[in-house]
Amino acid sequence: MPELRKDPIHGRWVIISTERGRRPSDFVPEERRPAGGFCPLCEGNEDRTPPEIIAFRDNGTPPNSRGWSLRVVPNKFPALRIEGGLSREGEGMYDKMNGVGAHEVVIETPLHHENLATLPVKSVENVLWAYRARMIDLRRDSRLRYVLVFKNHGIAAGASLEHPHSQIIALPIVPKRVIEEIEGAKTYFRYKDRCVFCDILRQELQQKARVICENPSFLSIAPFASRFPFETWVLPKVHHPSFEHMDAPLYGQAAQILSDTLARISRVLGDPPYNYVIHTTSFTDADNEYYHWHFEIMPKLTKVAGFEWGTGFYINPTPPEEAAAFLREGK
Amino acid sequence: MPELRKDPIHGRWVIISTERGRRPSDFVPEERRPAGGFCPLCEGNEDRTPPEIIAFRDNGTPPNSRGWSLRVVPNKFPALRIEGGLSREGEGMYDKMNGVGAHEVVIETPLHHENLATLPVKSVENVLWAYRARMIDLRRDSRLRYVLVFKNHGIAAGASLEHPHSQIIALPIVPKRVIEEIEGAKTYFRYKDRCVFCDILRQELQQKARVICENPSFLSIAPFASRFPFETWVLPKVHHPSFEHMDAPLYGQAAQILSDTLARISRVLGDPPYNYVIHTTSFTDADNEYYHWHFEIMPKLTKVAGFEWGTGFYINPTPPEEAAAFLREGK
Repeated sequence: MPELRKDPIHGRWVIISTERGRRPSDFVPEERRPAGGFCPLCEGNEDRTPPEIIAFRDNGTPPNSRGWSLRVVPNKFPALRIEGGLSREGEGMYDKMNGVGAHEVVIETPLHHENLATLPVKSVENVLWAYRARMIDLRRDSRLRYVLVFKNHGIAAGASLEHPHSQIIALPIVPKRVIEEIEGAKTYFRYKDRCVFCDILRQELQQKARVICENPSFLSIAPFASRFPFETWVLPKVHHPSFEHMDAPLYGQAAQILSDTLARISRVLGDPPYNYVIHTTSFTDADNEYYHWHFEIMPKLTKVAGFEWGTGFYINPTPPEEAAAFLREGK
Repeated sequence: MPELRKDPIHGRWVIISTERGRRPSDFVPEERRPAGGFCPLCEGNEDRTPPEIIAFRDNGTPPNSRGWSLRVVPNKFPALRIEGGLSREGEGMYDKMNGVGAHEVVIETPLHHENLATLPVKSVENVLWAYRARMIDLRRDSRLRYVLVFKNHGIAAGASLEHPHSQIIALPIVPKRVIEEIEGAKTYFRYKDRCVFCDILRQELQQKARVICENPSFLSIAPFASRFPFETWVLPKVHHPSFEHMDAPLYGQAAQILSDTLARISRVLGDPPYNYVIHTTSFTDADNEYYHWHFEIMPKLTKVAGFEWGTGFYINPTPPEEAAAFLREGK
């Protein structure tokens, strides 16, 4: 069983995968791994993944067979296990709990060589609907507190499979950075009686220098204090604390701007590796005035990250105003 | 002039290098860069670095000539500038200040192909003495609040030059992670009336499962809630809030254990890329009962970091007890 362990100084939790236990010889640099070969996420290989949790399928096709446009399956090598009760215990001064949670894979398309920047907007919208369905379902599990939806695109961004997919991790704790972000937004609201993200939207729409693209309901920007070159945030223009509780028509708009933004990043930077994460409010705080869900997209262009992990201190060699100009023009 | 910008939600500061301004075409994957060639840090090329700030030299050799065993020089492409007063200003809702600070390079040896794991302990000790001298000197600058000492070893860990070197960045602010770590230690002290790091030392020395190596004054461990496979902390056994204010004999002991620890990591993991950072207390809080300086060494073995940056949530595939056993036996 994986273990969740808490750092006694910072209070941050980490998942220790006790079963996967990677030894020194397992850390082969990813560049040297053979490319190509068998793909368990491709159409026709449905029996090579755990049984699907949900799928968007042609009428009449049975589960775990051909005929799907999107599948959600449990991760075959999960960082957390969905079975069992949550047990918390101490080990001397340290705190830990067993690794209860969900770890799922969203197979975004049967087409191995496409990606969210090249797929039709309708397919991207389906991915967002799948996220939403899983988030709503996982919220029902009383052991869980938070759902992280994220994507690693490209080997350098941590993707171990090339086939387009995203991941969903549901946790029995709220990660410390999420708490900090929610608390930061709450503090701002207390001081100003306005949502900090709504204020950002207003200022960015007025200044324009950091705007990448927009549609009637969403805005893509290079944030003022970008940590990474070409870091991009996509925010709904109207206040929404949680991704999964928006009105139905907004998912189409969200898909349109996500597709447009990723296509610009791909064109301007040559299909770079990237990560994105949906930042949404916690289960226990679903409807509030101060938090505003958004996507954070982080192209992986520099390697200086090791130092940044250790210190939380970022040096960004590309001013966000320049990044935004490149992406704005890179239509 | 570089700019320091504050994120309005989290309160984290980032450095935006307005002059370096890297464009999309500048982000060539580092693996494709030509290796070898001219090295500005090698002996004989002293005129290719900015003039040295301090150096350990053979008697009688003039500054910026041959005959040195260690040099500290300003970074030729500094992330911050030492000239000018500190000016803070707003830009609408955002906060920024000009990028005043120091960015220096410690050239650890004239020998291009050595590193801290292969150099004699005496040379490693000189590196630590150089850190100390620069930290004490930079503390005198009233515009500055914190000094970060760190090392990127290997291209994948962000090193742009192969020649053994570390970096020193002095900042007009205390980075948020440093504040959090100091505050976390303070909270623990308030609750227990003991230093959290002293408690960690006691428990690790008793449990032994996460101990990598030790000497009379220092202990190397795989921390209980390790974020990364083979993450390693090196702590002084006796309480010391700041690296630069230890008694002289302790630097020799620190060099011995750092050398031993890095040699184990190099042997067991095949000279992996890594980062280390000295965690020391802030200028304004030099002598206290609750913070305990230490090294954090992070081998860069996995690529999953992009997601972790975005969320602060870490999945570690190697239990620290197994990592410690490999490193303990990898003498």
